[in-house]
Amino acid sequence: MPAAAAALALRYGVGAEPKAGPWSDTIALMLSHRSVRGYKPDAPPPGTLETLVAAAQSAATSSNLQTWSVVAVDRPETRAELAVIAGNQKHIEQCPIFLVFLADVSRNGRLAAQEGTELAGMPYLESFLVAAIDAALAAQNAVVAAESLDLSTVYIGALRNDVTRVAGLLGLPPGATPVFGLCVGYAAPGREGEVKPRLPQAAILHRETYDADDQGHRAAYDPRMAEFSRRNEMAGDTWTRRVIARLGTMKALNGRDRLKEKLIALGFPLK
Amino acid sequence: MPAAAAALALRYGVGAEPKAGPWSDTIALMLSHRSVRGYKPDAPPPGTLETLVAAAQSAATSSNLQTWSVVAVDRPETRAELAVIAGNQKHIEQCPIFLVFLADVSRNGRLAAQEGTELAGMPYLESFLVAAIDAALAAQNAVVAAESLDLSTVYIGALRNDVTRVAGLLGLPPGATPVFGLCVGYAAPGREGEVKPRLPQAAILHRETYDADDQGHRAAYDPRMAEFSRRNEMAGDTWTRRVIARLGTMKALNGRDRLKEKLIALGFPLK
Repeated sequence: MPAAAAALALRYGVGAEPKAGPWSDTIALMLSHRSVRGYKPDAPPPGTLETLVAAAQSAATSSNLQTWSVVAVDRPETRAELAVIAGNQKHIEQCPIFLVFLADVSRNGRLAAQEGTELAGMPYLESFLVAAIDAALAAQNAVVAAESLDLSTVYIGALRNDVTRVAGLLGLPPGATPVFGLCVGYAAPGREGEVKPRLPQAAILHRETYDADDQGHRAAYDPRMAEFSRRNEMAGDTWTRRVIARLGTMKALNGRDRLKEKLIALGFPLK
Repeated sequence: MPAAAAALALRYGVGAEPKAGPWSDTIALMLSHRSVRGYKPDAPPPGTLETLVAAAQSAATSSNLQTWSVVAVDRPETRAELAVIAGNQKHIEQCPIFLVFLADVSRNGRLAAQEGTELAGMPYLESFLVAAIDAALAAQNAVVAAESLDLSTVYIGALRNDVTRVAGLLGLPPGATPVFGLCVGYAAPGREGEVKPRLPQAAILHRETYDADDQGHRAAYDPRMAEFSRRNEMAGDTWTRRVIARLGTMKALNGRDRLKEKLIALGFPLK
């Protein structure tokens, strides 16, 4: 593990990093995170999936409601269909463990039905949001746990391109929806990637009140992202251009402009 | 750190735990997580906040959009108001570090305005969801980082009781909203708490397709949660009764039934 100062310089860029403070091996592990999109076929040791889910279940969950679930998908036919939905991301077919994290209020719905009662608080946007946050906290624990076992990961937000189709493939009941997928496996040689620089800490961390004067932070970050992009054989674009490319057109949403109506149809009224 | 089998038994209950698999100190740390609601006044070492934010920024973020921010709140008057919004949670005033995590698309909005363009993808529910998930992944890294430094934490979802008021206190621009708060500090003596049991893994982890036949898992879990609750001087209720109490009435939502209209007013059209 790199020492604190070196790890911070990698994450923020030399000269842009905060001063090194308290440190641990776990923090060094998190600072060294890279998303990996190419995997060896090698399976992790038996029990790895269960360990990752135990770590995930150990994350905080709002009022202990545990409004999330996860589906481990092995079947090659299902993997292939999920890869297509996600815009032909081949690593979904390649990785030894593929997980779909669900926002899941259906368990509470079953509980209420079995107890002969109704849950007045369920149909609200708040309940969907709690479920999505529960899923995210759980998944991030699984990611850090995986990385502590020398495994790599990448989140697959593109499953939201068509939550209806994913829900159908996984046989989800009403009140459960995919929020993202997660590939887990050993990075293929040469696919380990490089730590991606982030915005200067001053752009993200505010003191007492929000400081919207961040144009200078963006100006400092743009060339760092352009260099990172060139080194990693991407477009060589600045962060500014990449944000505009990602959010500037309806086409780039890949159908996610219809997410709301699809969630409502999947049993989240979002009141 | 407890060994794998012991840590799993604590988390799931003896006899309900999965078999021990691969393991690491980081996983042991995550398995031992407890939410803490009583803090010593002692400040963590200088640089702790910056280290936690560096860990948070190292989490994955959708398309590197980095649509989250965090506000560190020290002012006692602001802390006191936040504590009231959250239903008089005194630990918000007590903990040495208090953070408010934001779903924040305002930075992209400023970027677009400064570049003389518009981001067609911004007004959708998808963009709010991405921002909330970004904030959650970041926050969970901060939590695990804090725990690796012998600090404790508790999420404060109750800031969503009134996002409008919190946004006003923190001077948030349109397109930024609190998603939750986070207390960080050293647990007060006797307030370290006990590892809270979770649902059996088979209730959360599905294989290939969703298995909704989970009434037996709930029946097995209910007495474990009732015992935990009795030991920790709470109501001694089963999980079933607690879920119904939390979601069964509109009153228990504490105003969060109005979250959607408040988010729209804060600059998230949720199309």
